Amino acid sequence: MPRYRALIAYDGTDFLGWQVQPGRRTVQGELEKAVNRMAKDPDPALKVHGSGRTDAGVHALGQVAHFDLPFAIPEEGVRKGLSTMLPYDIEIKQIQRVDDDFHAQYSAHTKTYRYRLTNREFRDPFRRNYTGYWPRRLDVAAMQMAIGDYLGEHDWQSFAAAGYQAKTTVRTVTRANLEQVSEDELIFEFTGTGFLYNQIRIMVGVLLEIGMGSRSVHDIPRLLAAKDRQQARLTAPASGLYLKSVDY
Amino acid sequence: MPRYRALIAYDGTDFLGWQVQPGRRTVQGELEKAVNRMAKDPDPALKVHGSGRTDAGVHALGQVAHFDLPFAIPEEGVRKGLSTMLPYDIEIKQIQRVDDDFHAQYSAHTKTYRYRLTNREFRDPFRRNYTGYWPRRLDVAAMQMAIGDYLGEHDWQSFAAAGYQAKTTVRTVTRANLEQVSEDELIFEFTGTGFLYNQIRIMVGVLLEIGMGSRSVHDIPRLLAAKDRQQARLTAPASGLYLKSVDY
Repeated sequence: MPRYRALIAYDGTDFLGWQVQPGRRTVQGELEKAVNRMAKDPDPALKVHGSGRTDAGVHALGQVAHFDLPFAIPEEGVRKGLSTMLPYDIEIKQIQRVDDDFHAQYSAHTKTYRYRLTNREFRDPFRRNYTGYWPRRLDVAAMQMAIGDYLGEHDWQSFAAAGYQAKTTVRTVTRANLEQVSEDELIFEFTGTGFLYNQIRIMVGVLLEIGMGSRSVHDIPRLLAAKDRQQARLTAPASGLYLKSVDY
Repeated sequence: MPRYRALIAYDGTDFLGWQVQPGRRTVQGELEKAVNRMAKDPDPALKVHGSGRTDAGVHALGQVAHFDLPFAIPEEGVRKGLSTMLPYDIEIKQIQRVDDDFHAQYSAHTKTYRYRLTNREFRDPFRRNYTGYWPRRLDVAAMQMAIGDYLGEHDWQSFAAAGYQAKTTVRTVTRANLEQVSEDELIFEFTGTGFLYNQIRIMVGVLLEIGMGSRSVHDIPRLLAAKDRQQARLTAPASGLYLKSVDY
């Protein structure tokens, strides 16, 4: 069966995350409905495989997924057909025909996440669903000094959500950057060979504690060495997190 | 009773407009609840008066309203108190104590509206609630040439929503501007001494027809002279409209 790779953006606000769940509105669920309608409801039902899950409220600028169709359709036809059938909070940015051995999850090399944070006294109505919100004053220079300690290969056990199960918690972060993009907004970006469940939001939470002075600017190496989830206290809100891109 | 003037922003997406309606979620309704809680539910209930209504889905960057409190509270206390009680899609940007003769509606001199339009093949998930969406190719230069014909004092009967009743339909537009702010976004701005119900959205609709070539670039003076609502066909979507500021 011909295989297609899709580059997808979505506003996660009104989704219960990426993964199909019976009776819940999810991104994968909406995509599978559209792909099956395009293929005229074949039996068995066609599946859409993403590069990985995103949580409820988490957004994507460049999620990647693949699916097979029972017959070949030109790329532009697939893109327009799906775009017409999908709800307005999902966008198909690109469709490419790919080889049978391409797999959105297993072929992925690195992923880049962005985290947008609003730092002001009260929420901005227009950013409430698109940024995390933090009312306390932050020492951005201290956070920028600390963020480099995330770089490299580490065991991220201290940064995994409680109850998280994985064969290994060793991952490599190749880029970690924090920029103040306006008077009241910060943007964090992290690139790596994969991230544990909630890892980015916990990494941001630790930086917020450093920015408030409730954690030392040199604490990250100690925290990594501790391999203990109890040590990292804050998980930054889902609304600020974006899967920016997946590289193959 | 001490009078306060509030500068307010709101995301109109989840409101059935500004005006109080029993059993519906409206901006005025949420504000009146908060003001009455702040005044410890006095009898009779306190009212909040806006500079004018906005429709369901229409946003505000700088709506102005006034209300009276049964006792004086410092401006900062009113701002913080209301901000803490209001839902996240309403923001109190400023509170000022004003004289008894200030009235948000009757003292208003001019109003400025902004209209954001996304012009691309399919909707952008992140702008679906914050811009109007238009998939057809537009001749922006022609629209920019035509927009100047809105300037000045005119009878706007052709631009009033069907069934609209007003003492007079004569209004003056003092500024009309259209800018292409990115490859796929246009921003219109209009300042005037008041606008009829739906007037801005119909003005934008006429410019869209001019941009598509389905209406002549010189058609606006004829349309104004016709004084006939049937002549203007399109009303641009509410999601792109913002009350930007009110001048006193």
